[in-house]
Amino acid sequence: MKKIQKPYALFIGDAPDMLAAKTAIGVRDWRPDDCIGQVKLSGCAIDLGLESLTIEEAANRGAQTLMIGVANRGGVIPNNWLQTMLDALNSGMDIASGLHTHLNSINELSSTAAKLGRQLFDVRIPDKDYPIANGKQRSGHRLLAVGTDCSVGKMYTTLAIEAEMKRQGWNATFRATGQTGIFIQGSGVPVDAVISDFIAGSIEVLTPSNSDDHWDIIEGQGSLFHPSYAGVSLGLLHGAQADFLILCHEPTRLHMRGLPEQKLPGIQECLDLNRQMAQVVSGNSQFAGISVNTQHLDDDKRSDYLLDLQEQYGLPCIDPMITGVKPILVELEKRCNL
Amino acid sequence: MKKIQKPYALFIGDAPDMLAAKTAIGVRDWRPDDCIGQVKLSGCAIDLGLESLTIEEAANRGAQTLMIGVANRGGVIPNNWLQTMLDALNSGMDIASGLHTHLNSINELSSTAAKLGRQLFDVRIPDKDYPIANGKQRSGHRLLAVGTDCSVGKMYTTLAIEAEMKRQGWNATFRATGQTGIFIQGSGVPVDAVISDFIAGSIEVLTPSNSDDHWDIIEGQGSLFHPSYAGVSLGLLHGAQADFLILCHEPTRLHMRGLPEQKLPGIQECLDLNRQMAQVVSGNSQFAGISVNTQHLDDDKRSDYLLDLQEQYGLPCIDPMITGVKPILVELEKRCNL
Repeated sequence: MKKIQKPYALFIGDAPDMLAAKTAIGVRDWRPDDCIGQVKLSGCAIDLGLESLTIEEAANRGAQTLMIGVANRGGVIPNNWLQTMLDALNSGMDIASGLHTHLNSINELSSTAAKLGRQLFDVRIPDKDYPIANGKQRSGHRLLAVGTDCSVGKMYTTLAIEAEMKRQGWNATFRATGQTGIFIQGSGVPVDAVISDFIAGSIEVLTPSNSDDHWDIIEGQGSLFHPSYAGVSLGLLHGAQADFLILCHEPTRLHMRGLPEQKLPGIQECLDLNRQMAQVVSGNSQFAGISVNTQHLDDDKRSDYLLDLQEQYGLPCIDPMITGVKPILVELEKRCNL
Repeated sequence: MKKIQKPYALFIGDAPDMLAAKTAIGVRDWRPDDCIGQVKLSGCAIDLGLESLTIEEAANRGAQTLMIGVANRGGVIPNNWLQTMLDALNSGMDIASGLHTHLNSINELSSTAAKLGRQLFDVRIPDKDYPIANGKQRSGHRLLAVGTDCSVGKMYTTLAIEAEMKRQGWNATFRATGQTGIFIQGSGVPVDAVISDFIAGSIEVLTPSNSDDHWDIIEGQGSLFHPSYAGVSLGLLHGAQADFLILCHEPTRLHMRGLPEQKLPGIQECLDLNRQMAQVVSGNSQFAGISVNTQHLDDDKRSDYLLDLQEQYGLPCIDPMITGVKPILVELEKRCNL
């Protein structure tokens, strides 16, 4: 995927609540230095804690891309957003969006962009043809987050690991496989939008051979146990050829996300199956930790929960947003004799 | 997918050898009554054992569709095929193709078809938007062929089971998931061409709830252990919600198809993993047999091989083209108390 130019002006439109601006929040949280400010419309009920700017102000301060950081009902682009988007193009910015309605399908935007030589990035669409995966062994380290379920914190876990690695001077790159991740990184593979024959191949392209000291920290998707998305998860697991896996988990969930009748897998079952399937392409693949989203646990239960888990599975167990991920780096150093 | 109208005239063009006409051969073998005859060009080096007809003759005898039963290098449609295809449209036939080059991308064909109200079927393209899979329990029986590898006989196995079931008066439908299967059945889902988020959903649509005595006999694809295609295989396995699985195997293979460095999985490993993954959506899913493509075994080794396998795994072990599949039906009857 062509790199989306940074820094961004984050468009949050007339967002009614923070949930609608999830994408903008992800970018603000993980790449604050890439965010020039927020662009609102009248009626916007939220604030990202960034300076509110007009398009003209954002352009003058060097914003390269207007990032559509808000989801609208049904993923459409409402009419009252259009003028702001045209202003952005006319001010010299590109536009990037992950909405279902493609920027390029809106004639006024695509013709204006073409006339001005600006880019419209629809990050839901793969922008190239990927090959069939070949499973050839690649150099460099690759770490992949896998999950007991969807939306359990795989992106936050991998971003936290990349950030900590960089703080400690490791050579690491976050590899995005979903829309918010792609905005954060500026590039990636929207793997759930790839033609099914090319899932693993697209991830091989995303995470190529690299220097021996380099770490690709790969955002996972879904779960091998989620009946809606497991095919994507397995293709991603095979394409990643990861030497290390992190299991992500949300301990208060009662059933698989979106499927009230679908029971959750056990943690041991997830560890075993993901390791077995990873070893099909990467013979020594092993788990290096469990990352738990503990936000819905009571404060006094959190430490006990993590300690119990650690004892039971013999792996560092952390919450990336609360305890941090340092124990995972210690584990990786130990396993790699770094 | 809209149903492709039968009977077919099988176009084998200027095929240099039988391998190039694999698709036509599949249709001839499994749906001889749907084949009016073969249409050749000068230079054709093969014969399907069907009457050779001109387009006019085929149309006069009632052919509804010219089926492109031959693959050309790179999947293109060469210029010297074009006149025959236009003749077919002008004679009142539709055209169906599984080539990489889409019929609809050739202006002369698409404009002629539009003018005459004829259909061009590109069976490599899903012809509708599929939903995300919901994993809801469905009525009726579903049997799926899975494999130790790609191209080990999953289509032939399921077609043989459907045929035997029909001979014995069972209520059975072959469900096609690949191009040749789609030609044979006249409809299906080209699952490796579906957007990855919808793999399982497309198979749920293909194999809906049915009467309690009905059997969907579902063509499998790839293998959970093939690093290029396993995502498709797992999505298909989850979407199929199969109560019975048949493992397909080719015993003389030395490595995974197309990947010289990729070792083959063991049969027990395949049985265990497929059953475990099938049970994520279908709690009682179980294997009802092993189908072996023994064509490369010596005649005197075949029976011993199948008997040994049968003893080792406690399942009926057959070659669908040599021993037939009756033992599998006996096993299904026993398991279902039919």
